[in-house]
Amino acid sequence: MAAQQKRSKERLDAILAAALRCFRREGFHGASISRICAEAGISPGHLYHYFDSKEAIVEAIVQGDRERIRGMLDQLATAPDPVEALMRAILTPSLEQRLQIDGVLTLEIYAEAARNPRIAAIVNDFNAHAQASVANLLAALQRDGTVDPDAQPDRVASFLISVAEGLMLREAVDPLHRPDHVAPYLRKLLRTILVDPPRKK
Amino acid sequence: MAAQQKRSKERLDAILAAALRCFRREGFHGASISRICAEAGISPGHLYHYFDSKEAIVEAIVQGDRERIRGMLDQLATAPDPVEALMRAILTPSLEQRLQIDGVLTLEIYAEAARNPRIAAIVNDFNAHAQASVANLLAALQRDGTVDPDAQPDRVASFLISVAEGLMLREAVDPLHRPDHVAPYLRKLLRTILVDPPRKK
Repeated sequence: MAAQQKRSKERLDAILAAALRCFRREGFHGASISRICAEAGISPGHLYHYFDSKEAIVEAIVQGDRERIRGMLDQLATAPDPVEALMRAILTPSLEQRLQIDGVLTLEIYAEAARNPRIAAIVNDFNAHAQASVANLLAALQRDGTVDPDAQPDRVASFLISVAEGLMLREAVDPLHRPDHVAPYLRKLLRTILVDPPRKK
Repeated sequence: MAAQQKRSKERLDAILAAALRCFRREGFHGASISRICAEAGISPGHLYHYFDSKEAIVEAIVQGDRERIRGMLDQLATAPDPVEALMRAILTPSLEQRLQIDGVLTLEIYAEAARNPRIAAIVNDFNAHAQASVANLLAALQRDGTVDPDAQPDRVASFLISVAEGLMLREAVDPLHRPDHVAPYLRKLLRTILVDPPRKK
């Protein structure tokens, strides 16, 4: 039985990997279920045993990334220097962080979310979780005395996620983008918002 | 002749507006030339008189936005408080700025650029121009004494464009995003990077 479960998990991973290759190459819209099956080397009947639609495949991929991001945030919570740890988390290209969704695929999924309510629900759910996880991390760092007590965790979380996604977007679309060139300004931003005590005007 | 030129310009604007509606509704990939013609109420032969492809339509739309952004940056150069002017420029949803390309359409075009070399060339050209324009603005503000002389215009420009796009992305995809909630942190970021003299550690 354990061997069968293992085989089933391997099959599932192979389908997700094939779907990712297809989405990257042809876009979410362009990649059909039959192309994904061909890429994975299985029959459509077999794929439908695991997933009832392309949306369900995206859901499984996003779910996997959510767990990886949660692991990353757990590490941040105990990092000796949270600002430097955040710097690394934001500037390391997502594929090196072993996330399955890189910048281009994020664009694809977000663009699809504007038209497809099932994808929009997946994206909204993911965003709400990411926002809450980062806000929780910031609140914990405030209790430790590491983060400025005047920062509002939920709003700072929202701002930092915007900044991180903006940098990921640049990384994905702009060949002139150099993470090392923006790093000093990102560090200034993080120190100002998270660490430095507010200065009176 | 002048009347004919005016009619031609009106026809062109009508095609671009129809294409924008189609791209928003169906995505760049989904929107066919024949759907765009139906939306504009013209024949394909007539459309091909103006544009030889969907890519050429995107190019014309991006070109229009480039000119509007240039106008916006010219206003910033003479604003009494550049930080507050930048705040408004970044946080005002793009449609209110009379740009034709909003967040969702940007996603669509960026995602397509990952697969389509003609679209990639248009996007790269636009990005290089935006980057240079913002860097020029910052350099001019440094000469005026408004911006911290230690800031490196090209790198700060790159960072600010990333941040602005990240916020635009959030606005497009996250129903929980509240520009007024992130505004105080954006202001801190802008003041720290652009205005405050560097503090010695």
